[in-house]
Amino acid sequence: MARVNDHYLKLRASYLFSETGRRVREFQAAHPDAKLIRLGIGDVTQPLPAAVIHAMHEAVDEMARAETFRGYPPETGWDFLVEAIARHDYGERGIKLAPDEIVVSDGAKSDTGNIQEIFGPDCVVALSDPVYPAYLDVTVMGGRAGNADANGRYDRVVYLPCTAENNFQPHLPDRPVDLIYLCYPNNPTGAVLTRAALKTWVDYARERNAVILYDAAYEAYIRDGEIPHSIYEIEGAREAAIEFRSFSKTAGFTGTRCAYTVVPKELQGRSGSGEAVSLNALWVRRQSTKFNGVAYVIQRGAAATYTDEGRRQVKGLVDHYMDNARIIRDGLEAAGLTVHGGRNAPYIWVKTPGRLSSWDFFDKLLNEAHVVGTPGAGFGPSGEGYVRLTAFGARAAAEEAVERIKTRVAL
Amino acid sequence: MARVNDHYLKLRASYLFSETGRRVREFQAAHPDAKLIRLGIGDVTQPLPAAVIHAMHEAVDEMARAETFRGYPPETGWDFLVEAIARHDYGERGIKLAPDEIVVSDGAKSDTGNIQEIFGPDCVVALSDPVYPAYLDVTVMGGRAGNADANGRYDRVVYLPCTAENNFQPHLPDRPVDLIYLCYPNNPTGAVLTRAALKTWVDYARERNAVILYDAAYEAYIRDGEIPHSIYEIEGAREAAIEFRSFSKTAGFTGTRCAYTVVPKELQGRSGSGEAVSLNALWVRRQSTKFNGVAYVIQRGAAATYTDEGRRQVKGLVDHYMDNARIIRDGLEAAGLTVHGGRNAPYIWVKTPGRLSSWDFFDKLLNEAHVVGTPGAGFGPSGEGYVRLTAFGARAAAEEAVERIKTRVAL
Repeated sequence: MARVNDHYLKLRASYLFSETGRRVREFQAAHPDAKLIRLGIGDVTQPLPAAVIHAMHEAVDEMARAETFRGYPPETGWDFLVEAIARHDYGERGIKLAPDEIVVSDGAKSDTGNIQEIFGPDCVVALSDPVYPAYLDVTVMGGRAGNADANGRYDRVVYLPCTAENNFQPHLPDRPVDLIYLCYPNNPTGAVLTRAALKTWVDYARERNAVILYDAAYEAYIRDGEIPHSIYEIEGAREAAIEFRSFSKTAGFTGTRCAYTVVPKELQGRSGSGEAVSLNALWVRRQSTKFNGVAYVIQRGAAATYTDEGRRQVKGLVDHYMDNARIIRDGLEAAGLTVHGGRNAPYIWVKTPGRLSSWDFFDKLLNEAHVVGTPGAGFGPSGEGYVRLTAFGARAAAEEAVERIKTRVAL
Repeated sequence: MARVNDHYLKLRASYLFSETGRRVREFQAAHPDAKLIRLGIGDVTQPLPAAVIHAMHEAVDEMARAETFRGYPPETGWDFLVEAIARHDYGERGIKLAPDEIVVSDGAKSDTGNIQEIFGPDCVVALSDPVYPAYLDVTVMGGRAGNADANGRYDRVVYLPCTAENNFQPHLPDRPVDLIYLCYPNNPTGAVLTRAALKTWVDYARERNAVILYDAAYEAYIRDGEIPHSIYEIEGAREAAIEFRSFSKTAGFTGTRCAYTVVPKELQGRSGSGEAVSLNALWVRRQSTKFNGVAYVIQRGAAATYTDEGRRQVKGLVDHYMDNARIIRDGLEAAGLTVHGGRNAPYIWVKTPGRLSSWDFFDKLLNEAHVVGTPGAGFGPSGEGYVRLTAFGARAAAEEAVERIKTRVAL
């Protein structure tokens, strides 16, 4: 039989969401009348903005006529979308990007995973702890994680703990690393990095020749004017960072699939023979060989988020979720809980009361309030002692969840 | 600087389409009034079927209301699409597939490339010559090709020549291989494999523990009732083959992006410690970790190709292109040229007259008939002496191209 990629066999079963799912199903079977409020999964619930709907209908009609039909898209994105991204997401913040530094794709999950492919197998990866689980899984699958111990910690990964003690801002690595995943606003903690903190990372990466893989999928949720939306707001970042963005959480595209990745021309890696190699050229080559671009109809929908009407509607969506976040955060604080995040991010990171474990507090919320969260320990050891709640539900659900936690949960 | 994937540096520049593009631009600059007919690129030109358009409009409207909005799709495809594929593409041919053996994706190019990731780095890859260039490029990028000689032939790839002498049906490899890319109906030669020939390959793969990567993207173009549409029509193939299918050439989805891959449960690879490993489980894990599914609107469009109306319209599209193929084939034969393919495939593989090289005949067609083809040598050494023409244009273009070749080209 053909040999398989043995690194895949080092993956741990994706315990977190299967185990929460199992507990929820068991609870539901025992309490069929209980009306659950699901604040566990980070999926949006509000419809697509009207401007996006309108643009997609128009684009579908274009595909119905030979004169306006579109075949293969440019593998890195249609000009109309790439130019809108450069102008609005970057130009308006004073960041100048060339159109061919922006590569449109079907999702930040695809890109943050596939990006490792352009790097050598020996690159050392640094991950925050807690962390979005896919970053770790793709590191394992690419053979860069090494072997796991009994607690699921891999011996080649450099973990960067994010705890209340360091205000959920990781310290710089204590040994050499090549690739550093940073996600801000953060999933799961809801933390953000100040300009000064982000500059520390950019300076570190430049000095040590590391590459920052900056996941800015939640940048639209930033309220504080002092917090950078893009890593390229920091001087020198063009030589140090790849940035990932998505329309998923901004414009409700989780089921519509469009994202993009920025790889500046200055950014370089090193070949085995010591030569500098453009990472932009490698990423474009990867995408044009193993990907065929995003559907025309979808790209037209994404571009509509940059019209005046689209921008108003996107802002309305984000405001809606951030009002949920405020309601949850304020409500839980009023109930006496310690709460992080939720100010510049759609995630609320709730300290478990009375030294309860993540899973025990998850069970308590489920059993007493019929509210589903996600145990922080599932995102990594430093997530122990927390539960993540998301703001992506309906308003009534956020209000009802808070009311139930206040009145039904013995804290 | 972070080390890059050195295998990428072994890729040859994609000379073929950049060089044809350069020659076309140069000709057009010198002859601004010449009306070119482009039969070079394999992209469709006819609009999406009305049933697809209707379904996509409906799905866009569903995304406009909270009650019917869809968030993250199942990573391997919505049930309605997977079940339609199982029932129509396979069930109606007597092939029984479980829904979780079918994995929906954004394209066969993505899947035929990414599939190598679930295999070990030492797997030996067999490719036909001539070949769809992406199979070779992904083999190089994955480190399985070895080094190229001056002619661009890689020392670890096992090339399988397909020539008029063997009726464009490759012989079995003369040394052990692990992964065998087969594409039938074939791009670029337009050849098909009989049931008996395909059985030889399945038997070989089972005996030698190789895996066939069977690209059936053009199966809808098969007219001959004796030619298998799926490799699973062959006994034992469930233990020997992964099959790739696409809506691109069937339903005009090149700009709409939907495809799927079948990995049967029986299909196994071997771990380093000698244990059998399910390739289905590895592929599902790959896709659910590095991909987030296909847009709901797109999947609804794809599913509409299986309605009675959709099937009639898809058949109309394929018939249209196959009529073009017949017109081109018959016309060139009448002009005295030797022509292969075009009977069960949208590609016509034209022997160059008078021992002209591929590039010389390409130039001759361009200069004398203002018709753009693709030089066969660009698909591999055994493509020397051929030019590929595609049937994906408008009817008038096919007719005019034939007329010009007949009357203007000195053969």
